[in-house]
Order: sequence, then structure tokens, then C-alpha cells
Amino acid sequence: MLVVMSHVATAEDVERVCAAIKAMGYTPAPMPGAQRTAVGLVGNDGRVDDSLIAELPGVAQVIHVSKPYKQVSREWRPEHTIVTIAPGVSFGGTDVPVIAGPCSVETEAQILESARAVKAAGGVGLRGGAFKPRSSPYSFQGLGKQGLALLALAKAETGLAIVTEAMDDEGAHLVAEVADCIQIGARNMQNYSLLKTVGRIGKPVLLKRGMAATIQDLLLSAEYVLSEGNPHVILCERGLRSFDSTSRNLFDLTAIPVVHQLSHLPIVADPSHGTGRRDKVTPMARAAVAAGADGLLIEMHPHPEQALSDGAQSLNIPQFDELMVQLRRVAAAVDRFISTPSAAGK
Amino acid sequence: MLVVMSHVATAEDVERVCAAIKAMGYTPAPMPGAQRTAVGLVGNDGRVDDSLIAELPGVAQVIHVSKPYKQVSREWRPEHTIVTIAPGVSFGGTDVPVIAGPCSVETEAQILESARAVKAAGGVGLRGGAFKPRSSPYSFQGLGKQGLALLALAKAETGLAIVTEAMDDEGAHLVAEVADCIQIGARNMQNYSLLKTVGRIGKPVLLKRGMAATIQDLLLSAEYVLSEGNPHVILCERGLRSFDSTSRNLFDLTAIPVVHQLSHLPIVADPSHGTGRRDKVTPMARAAVAAGADGLLIEMHPHPEQALSDGAQSLNIPQFDELMVQLRRVAAAVDRFISTPSAAGK
Amino acid sequence: MLVVMSHVATAEDVERVCAAIKAMGYTPAPMPGAQRTAVGLVGNDGRVDDSLIAELPGVAQVIHVSKPYKQVSREWRPEHTIVTIAPGVSFGGTDVPVIAGPCSVETEAQILESARAVKAAGGVGLRGGAFKPRSSPYSFQGLGKQGLALLALAKAETGLAIVTEAMDDEGAHLVAEVADCIQIGARNMQNYSLLKTVGRIGKPVLLKRGMAATIQDLLLSAEYVLSEGNPHVILCERGLRSFDSTSRNLFDLTAIPVVHQLSHLPIVADPSHGTGRRDKVTPMARAAVAAGADGLLIEMHPHPEQALSDGAQSLNIPQFDELMVQLRRVAAAVDRFISTPSAAGK
Amino acid sequence: MLVVMSHVATAEDVERVCAAIKAMGYTPAPMPGAQRTAVGLVGNDGRVDDSLIAELPGVAQVIHVSKPYKQVSREWRPEHTIVTIAPGVSFGGTDVPVIAGPCSVETEAQILESARAVKAAGGVGLRGGAFKPRSSPYSFQGLGKQGLALLALAKAETGLAIVTEAMDDEGAHLVAEVADCIQIGARNMQNYSLLKTVGRIGKPVLLKRGMAATIQDLLLSAEYVLSEGNPHVILCERGLRSFDSTSRNLFDLTAIPVVHQLSHLPIVADPSHGTGRRDKVTPMARAAVAAGADGLLIEMHPHPEQALSDGAQSLNIPQFDELMVQLRRVAAAVDRFISTPSAAGK
Repeated sequence: MLVVMSHVATAEDVERVCAAIKAMGYTPAPMPGAQRTAVGLVGNDGRVDDSLIAELPGVAQVIHVSKPYKQVSREWRPEHTIVTIAPGVSFGGTDVPVIAGPCSVETEAQILESARAVKAAGGVGLRGGAFKPRSSPYSFQGLGKQGLALLALAKAETGLAIVTEAMDDEGAHLVAEVADCIQIGARNMQNYSLLKTVGRIGKPVLLKRGMAATIQDLLLSAEYVLSEGNPHVILCERGLRSFDSTSRNLFDLTAIPVVHQLSHLPIVADPSHGTGRRDKVTPMARAAVAAGADGLLIEMHPHPEQALSDGAQSLNIPQFDELMVQLRRVAAAVDRFISTPSAAGK
Repeated sequence: MLVVMSHVATAEDVERVCAAIKAMGYTPAPMPGAQRTAVGLVGNDGRVDDSLIAELPGVAQVIHVSKPYKQVSREWRPEHTIVTIAPGVSFGGTDVPVIAGPCSVETEAQILESARAVKAAGGVGLRGGAFKPRSSPYSFQGLGKQGLALLALAKAETGLAIVTEAMDDEGAHLVAEVADCIQIGARNMQNYSLLKTVGRIGKPVLLKRGMAATIQDLLLSAEYVLSEGNPHVILCERGLRSFDSTSRNLFDLTAIPVVHQLSHLPIVADPSHGTGRRDKVTPMARAAVAAGADGLLIEMHPHPEQALSDGAQSLNIPQFDELMVQLRRVAAAVDRFISTPSAAGK
Repeated sequence: MLVVMSHVATAEDVERVCAAIKAMGYTPAPMPGAQRTAVGLVGNDGRVDDSLIAELPGVAQVIHVSKPYKQVSREWRPEHTIVTIAPGVSFGGTDVPVIAGPCSVETEAQILESARAVKAAGGVGLRGGAFKPRSSPYSFQGLGKQGLALLALAKAETGLAIVTEAMDDEGAHLVAEVADCIQIGARNMQNYSLLKTVGRIGKPVLLKRGMAATIQDLLLSAEYVLSEGNPHVILCERGLRSFDSTSRNLFDLTAIPVVHQLSHLPIVADPSHGTGRRDKVTPMARAAVAAGADGLLIEMHPHPEQALSDGAQSLNIPQFDELMVQLRRVAAAVDRFISTPSAAGK
Repeated sequence: MLVVMSHVATAEDVERVCAAIKAMGYTPAPMPGAQRTAVGLVGNDGRVDDSLIAELPGVAQVIHVSKPYKQVSREWRPEHTIVTIAPGVSFGGTDVPVIAGPCSVETEAQILESARAVKAAGGVGLRGGAFKPRSSPYSFQGLGKQGLALLALAKAETGLAIVTEAMDDEGAHLVAEVADCIQIGARNMQNYSLLKTVGRIGKPVLLKRGMAATIQDLLLSAEYVLSEGNPHVILCERGLRSFDSTSRNLFDLTAIPVVHQLSHLPIVADPSHGTGRRDKVTPMARAAVAAGADGLLIEMHPHPEQALSDGAQSLNIPQFDELMVQLRRVAAAVDRFISTPSAAGK
């Protein structure tokens, strides 16, 4: 941390800053400059609260030189982290796994038909919500435990890895019994109690970026999981809140190379939520792979026009088949490979 | 709900829409127009998922005529709801209660000194976090149960109403034992499990707007609490995420008259988080009252330069005293009254 | 400017930065610290382009200690600037002038009726567009020169000061012949050719903040006018682009105390565009005065339901009369005064 | 346009709406529904101002069924428009032209070295600013006419098409003498005087999206050019204002499929401004092509560390060479082709 003093700061002002730094248990390092003095803080353990300093007389600006996160940072671990959620389903390497399925688990027939279609097209994981966070209390909230049982059935039949969302502590333990990867949704990205819980559970976590979260916020939320001893975190870009209603969200694909620079964790993209419109999913899925995404989450429904939620952004089966064909070509063009089910167990 | 057909829609397209509406259990009402046909949906219970319809061939647009929330709406209850959290501390009437105190409960001395200063200046409630949601797992997370005990102590001495945050189900029950009003923070505005829990607990709830939440999102989150049978909800504007770093957040005071139009619930303002800078708190607190706020939440610390969190946005005691003087004048100018501690018990 | 080196930067990296600073004509001041070195740049005239430095090997961060604007800054001129656009119509002192009128000048009867109503209610200036920037080329674009002639007529009869918008160089000269203050609209805030033109004309300028402009952007645009020798600039907050469609824009009233801290220039508020809804104008106009606004711009139309533009956000005459009554009370509560027409000439 | 009446609207309210529609010169078409009445407006020429209607008693909502733009819409012209700015340099077909070069024209040596490198790597156009819009009046503003002369020199030697920005009417005529395509920058996207001028000049126009412009705003600005008789418009996505400072702007690649759905005009992407960081340009350029971009604008400088502006986002020559190699592979994977200079004349 660097405290830049105002050009009218007095020697007393500088001493007061130094004293405050000492009082916090760190070492001040004054650096007199041509026009103004700067004071460095030595021994920063990432817990310094700058507001103590920022308001002292004569202080012009406080600069954070160290980043507030640690274990998630590229400096902490220079090589890529590879998160394996099931045999053959790994994120962060050359492979690009595609996880697909309906927004919500609705019926046995629906989820089995979905799972078979995902596998047939070359997907390696099945997504589908049993617990659904919905803006309105009157919207369909998911089948709960029954939904988890149906996902387990689909896994038993197809061997697909299961990714599904948990919304609270109790749900997280239930989800962990069935899923290969616990999803934390965008609305819960800063639900720190839940992050600590899934950190302690230890299963792989797919952490979605909140709709107004900076990349730093996202990395700090991941840090909550890692700080509980769980290093298996996959980040996910799914679109930000925007002023333009032509798409549901503003899909921030630049997050992919930004995360790759700042962190060793893998990042996947969800173009279904990212765009909210079925006909935008395919081009933006291609774009995500071209930008370097380590995996994709795709909403696919055997009969989108009958879906209980998010039908407008779900691909149907033929559209998903066609998407997989296109993705293989784009992945090859950037020296990546769409993971294949044969590699994914069974 | 109104389904507007494309000007090239065929009679078959219109029939398909009518059939889909029937299949969902509602009645279609086709309205042929000069250039295009619209189809109304009769019997909407607020649970219609438009995505089923929006993607049918020939559909140009789906219009929601009814609002997605119910019990929180002005139509549901035309008169203002008055939420009383303690004797003499009521939100939604002519009075404007001011709740103040430090960001976090730190020590007995600190919280008692804060409480006395709040009461002396004319505040009627004490705020202070025992459980703190912090972006970084390495930041101070609050004293927990010990913090609640200190708040109880401050209440016993001063008679101030207590408002403090709960972050999870377990914490909500702990907070409910001590607090007069349970605060749900911005990051948890869409933590639906927590909303249902505080709905069932039944104590007054102060619900902060999320940093990228629309007013409709905020009202829907309040609807979660009301739908569990708890009508005692106070909304709170505390600033939105913004592209301009000159203030910490973008304080959306227009939310106050907007909420007053759409809902019967009271809305308070938090200019401390809303601006994030001590010297902006006083003018924006005045502005909030002038805009019609039903109460204020103010961060005040006896020694802001020693605060463990949010020191930069906390007023010190003399600044808070001066704020209260100014607020009384502005409140009078809009025919409101800053609540007085004499009215607030003891 | 301060160049913070990475903790792995070599001595060569530091020397390279020093050499680059010298090559740009400034003096480097290396400040070795406990963990890393910082290099100050001495002699910064505000024209340093940091991108040359930011990309050198070993550079972690470049900090701008000086602000990029100059003449508009509070440091440049500590006392408030008072901009007088007509006798008795001054912005930046204790008085708070209210400028009101229709969005567009439509007819002689309309503008004269508007002007008389503004004056009768206590306004001191008349606003009304002769040249209208409209998103669509098919919307009403204003009466042009004929509109200016009608404004001149209204001024001759009522003595009100005239504020009206110019959209290009030619228009700026035409407007300058009639108006007391040339308005630059939000869409043209960064039309630098136009800013230079009105800088050279020398008449008072009302500069509206762009819909995604930071305060720094706004101040830099004002700097364009001042750098041409015209110090008579009034800034205007009129709302930012937002994700929430319940109001037309997101009215950022915190901009008022922020500008007052950073700059000596006066700032006024336009709650009509700031909210876009008639019933929100009165509470937010009150809030603007309570926040410290140096003036107000209000859309008022004798017959809003017949207005050719912006009817939904225009007050009618009785509503404007009532607004003025309320504003006088709020202004008094913050030791300001709504300017009176008697003071405004005639 | 469809006027949805409130469910408590009276027959008089409906009649008043019908009368208002007649008074505006259109035909009302009342459509009584089960719960409420809707009134259609027949004969809408795109110039209807809904504010007249929206504020009438009993009106719940006004729905715009027709889009506000016309000639730019896909309905107006179902096939893609192909804009050819020079022989072999066409936007909107299978080819994907890459236009590259420095932010600013600085010297003869710099622009010639740039042009040769662009051509050698396979680019077909040269970009470089002679007139530069800069936030600060103290930043380098471009070489002006001298810069245009240097661009002409580079064109004469290499045969590359020239794309350069105009900031005002006078500049637009100067630019038109040299450039093959006149660029309108993001800050001037709603400078309607300038849009009309380049519409009348008739040369191809590259119109950049403003930093808080919706797609509809962008299309309406393009409509200004088309409405003056100039159909040769290329749209450009270059990033939006964002709350996250890890990238300079928020690059909205979904704009590409959205524009392709709504309009027949081609759209190109500028990943240099879109990301603002050199190391993000290559992945996001690949992503743009994968999303369907009809061309790319790339900042490239032979010596970025010496650039007078935007050095941090400029590729150097080897990086640009490598980018072109990667782009050819991605383009092939989506059945497009990076245009080659051999096809581009000379």
C-alpha cells in the first residue's frame, strides 16, 4: 500500500500517517519526492483497511499495490489449475467440456430425454436445476429433492457429470450427494455463508459471476471457497446487468482473458444466460471458445416451448447438435478440443 | 398479458397462440386490429411464463399488463403501510426516524459511546453490524454473538431500537432475539432462502436494494417476505454500482418517489453507503429527506479514524450532531418531522 | 505521476522507466521502497500520456497524482465562480435561479404563455429548444431560427433570461445572438469542436453531463471551454443511462457535492430529464436544492398533453406554481434563496 | 402503437384516447378485452409522440409495435447490405476485411512503416487519426490536414483503403477528399449535424457505437445517414462504459448477432478500444470473428511504447502478424475469409 501525500502536506501530516501505520502493526516507509511525499506500508498481509489512512489530514490518495485476493491469484500459483469434476471431465486444460441441459428438472421423461440428447451430441455433463432461484415467489421454484433424484437417474443411465445449483446450506449438502459439481448462482455470488459451506464440503464448485460483480469481486468470492481448503473452483461468466434490453444481459467475454491473466482458475461461459435469446446462443458460444473459454454451459430442452422456465433461451435438440458441430471447428482453430463423452467415463 | 402478433402472422399462428394459452389453463381473447392481431390472456394469476408464448411463430411481442408482484403493490393496498419496530419508532408516516451507529460493533466502549451520541443528537435507533458481509475473507467479519450481546447492552442503557444484519438462517434467528429490525444486506437481496426465513420469523425487516437491482427486483424480494406472512418490511436505497469512481456507489434517490408510487411499503435511505464519502453524507441525507425518505440510516463512529471498517464514510459525533440539526430544518420544509427519542420509549 | 514498479522489477527495468521519462522531457525521481520501487515524474504539465510508461517491463501500475484538468479545478481557483447570465440571474452564490419552459418552442402563443407563467411563478429564466437533438431523424427537430425569434419575443415581453441549445457551430452563433446562455446538450458533451466554438464565442455556457460521463469527463469538457478563454460555464446534472426503466434516467444528485468539492464552477440540476416522469419532478427538484444545487432547469408546458416532445415529463402551470412554493421552503432550510424575478431585471 | 387502458378506465377515458389519436391525424382502433381495453393506432408513420397519449387518464401503458427506425431495418431490406469502400474491400459478405494502423498519424515514417506492415500481414485497410477527439484539451489532438496528406501518401504507396475520423462538418469534407471511409467516433454518435453532413457527402461511413448507446440508438443514428440518401454505412462495436476497470470498456460482442437480426447493415468490431489492453486484443478479435463480425478494426503501431496516444492497446508488428494468422483459422471455422490485399487492388 502506498499513501500519496498532498503537495501541501506538512511534516506533521506525514508523521501522523507513519504513526497510524505503526499503530496498525505495520512498518511505514516514507519516500520523499520532488513535489510530494509518498509513504509505503511494509508487511501488508492483505487485511489493511485503508479508510483509516485515507481520511487523515494531508493524504491525497491511497494506492493498493497488492491485490486483495491471494490463493486465487496467478502470482500464488503460476500454472493453470485443472479442475476435474468426473473422470474425463476436466476444466482448465486443452479440453473444453460442454455441459448442457434444461434450466429446470421437470419430469423423468424430460431429464432423461435431455441427458440422452446431450450425450448423443457430444456433451460430457448434464445441467438442470432442482432448486431454482426465481425473482418472483410465485414462479416455479424447482422440484427440490425429487429433482436431485431424477438427476441421479440420468447420471446412472448416461454417465454424464452432473452440475446443479445449491441455494442454501441445507441444499448444498443435498446437492453434494448427487452432483459432481455444485453450482453457486449469480444471485448468491456474495452469499458468504454459502461460499464457506461449499468450501468446507470440498466438492468442485462452479461459481457464477454476479450481475454487477467486477472480476475482482468474483475472484474474492472464489477466495472464500479456497480459504476453506477447497481449491476446486470453476468460474463462470453469464452476463451482466445492462441498459440495453435487446439482450437479457451483457455478456462480458473479455472476462475470459482477464481471468486467465489474474488467476490460475479455469473460467467457463454460459451464453444462454449471457444473451437470453436462443438465436444468439450459437454465435456467442462460438465466440466464447474463440476467446479461450475453458468450458461451456448451455441450456437445451427437448421441447423449449413447453419449458417451465427460460424456454426463450433454450436450444432444442437439433439446434444443440448443430452447435456442437460448430464448436468443434472453432475449438480446433484455437488449438483446443471439445471434450468427448467417450473420455468422460462409462 | 397481451400477445402482439407480427403483421405477417397467419391465422394459423394466431390459433396456435390461442391453443397454447388454453393449454396453460387460461382463456385467450383474440383482438384483430387494423394491421395486426393481438391476443389477450384472461385469468392471469401472475404465474404465467411468457417464454412459452414469446417463441411461437408469428409472435412479435409479449406485453405484461399486470405487474409480477402483488402484496407489495399499491394496488393491493392503497394506503401507506406503517412499520413500527419499537415504541415510537415508526416508518411510513409523517415521522422520519434516524437510525445511526458504527459499521461494525467493535467494543463495549465503542458501541456504548456510539449509542449515547446517537440518542443525544436525537436519533431513535442504533445500527451496527455483528455479522459483516465482506468482499474479502481476510477482512474483519464482525464479532458475531458477542456483538449482539453488546447491542443488547446498548439498548438496555439507551432504549434505542436496534437494527442489525443477518447473513444466513442461523444468524437470522440469533439476530431476532436481540434486534428490533433484521437487516438484509444488498448482497443478500436475492438470497431467497434467507428472505423466506425472515418472512417466517415475523420481525420487522429492513431490506436493502442490491447494487444492480431494479425497483421491480427489490419489490419482488420484498414479496418473498410478505408471501411468508410478514408484512413488516422497510425498503432501503443504498446506492447502485456505477462506472464513476468519484463516489463509492450511485445513490438513486429517485427510487424513493418511484417506490412510493408502486408500493405501500416505506422506504429509507442510507447516504453513507450511497456515497461512500463522509463529506457527501450530509448533503445527500438532506436530499433524501427532501425527496420523501421515510427514514435514514447513517454511519457514525465516535472515532472514525480507528474504525475497523468503513471509516471513510462514517461521520464523527460533532458531524452527526450537525447533520441532525440540518435534517430537522429540511424535514420541516417538506412537512415531515425527524422522530425524537422522547417519543421512542424510555 | 507515480510509476509503481513490480516487486520483481530489475534495476534495468527501473532505469528504462527513468530513461523514458527523460525522453518525454520530464525528470524521473526514483523512490526505492521496502518491497518495490516507485518512480515519480517531476514537471508534469498535465500532458503526460501514461501509456508509454504503463507497458514497459517491470511496471506494475501508473498513478496519476495530478488531475487531468486544470482551470476548472478547485485547486486552480479556491473560491466559487459566480456565473451571471443576465442582470439578477447568477449561478454559484446564495441564490438558486429556476429556469423553466417547454422542451421545444412550438408557437408564439405557446412560448409567450409559458414565459408569462414562469415569471408569474417566480422563475427568472426561460428555456425552450429551437434546435432539438432527437434520436430519430423522423421526430420533430425544432423550429430553428423561427424558434429563436419567438424566444427573443418572449424575452422582450417578460425580461426573462433565455437558455437554449446549440447543436453545431452555425447554430451556436445564431443562438448566441438571442440567448443569455448557450446550452450544450448531453449528446454533445464530448463534441469538442462545438465546445471550442462556444469557448470562443464567450457567452455563458450551460454544459449538460453526458449520459455515461464521469464527473471527470464533465470537468474535462468544461476545461475545453475555459481553455478557449471563456470562464462562464455552468455544469448540469440531468441523469445517467440506467438498467432500470422505471425512470427515464438515473438522476445522480451526488454529482452536486462532488462537483462542489472538485471544481469552483456552479452546477445546476435538471430533474425533468433526470427522472423523465412528471410526478417525480417535484420531489427530485426539492432533493436537488437540498443537496446544494446552484440552480434548476424545469420543463413546464402550458398544455403538456399537446406538447410536440417530452410531454410526459413536463409540469403544467399549476404544478409548476406549486413546485416553486415548495422549493422556496427547502431552499430556506439550507440557507439558500430561490432567485426572484424582481431581482432579474425589468 | 397500442394503447393499453387501465382496468378501471371508463368509457370516457377510452373515448378521450380515441379523440387524441384522431387529433394527431391517425385512426383509432379500440379493441375491448376481457379485463381491459386496448386501442390501436392505425397509420403510424413512425413520427407519433406517445407522450401525448401516455399521460391521459385511464391509460396504463403505451406499446410501440413498430420500430422507430426504418431504412436500416431488416424488414425494409431483407438481404445483407454489402458496403464496398475500395476495390476488393467489402463489408457484409463472406469476406472479413481487417483495417489496422496506429491510433494517430504521427510522422511520415511512422505511417508508412505501419501501412507496409498492415499490408504485409494481410490487412486491406489503414486506419489512423488525423483529427483526434481527446477527453482533455491538453492531449495531442492529431496532425489535422498534414495527417490526411500522410494518409494519402500511404495509400499511394500501398493501395490500402483509408479509414479515418471526422469530428465536425469542415473536417468531414477534408477527410472525404482522402479517405475511402469516413469514421464517426463514439463520442459523436449522436452529433446529428455531423451525421447529416456525412449523409450528404455520400462516401461510406463507419459509425461507432457510443459508450452508453443501445443498439436501437445506434441504428437510429445510422438512420440519420441513410435518410440523407447515403446507404453506405458500416456499424462498429467498440465497447461500452462499465463499472469494472480491469478492462477499458465492456466489449459487447452480442451486438453483432443482434445487429444482424435487426438490420441489413454490416457490423465490424474494434477489440483495441473494446478491451483497451494489448494482451486482450488477440483473443477478443478471434471472438469477434467467431461471433460473426463483418470486419475488424485493429490498433497497430510499429513502436507502441513511443505512441502519442493509446499505446497501451496497440499491437506491435509481430503481434499483428500473429493475430492475422490466428484470425484466418477462426474465420475458416465459421465459413468466412479474411480479405486479402491481393483482392484489394494494386
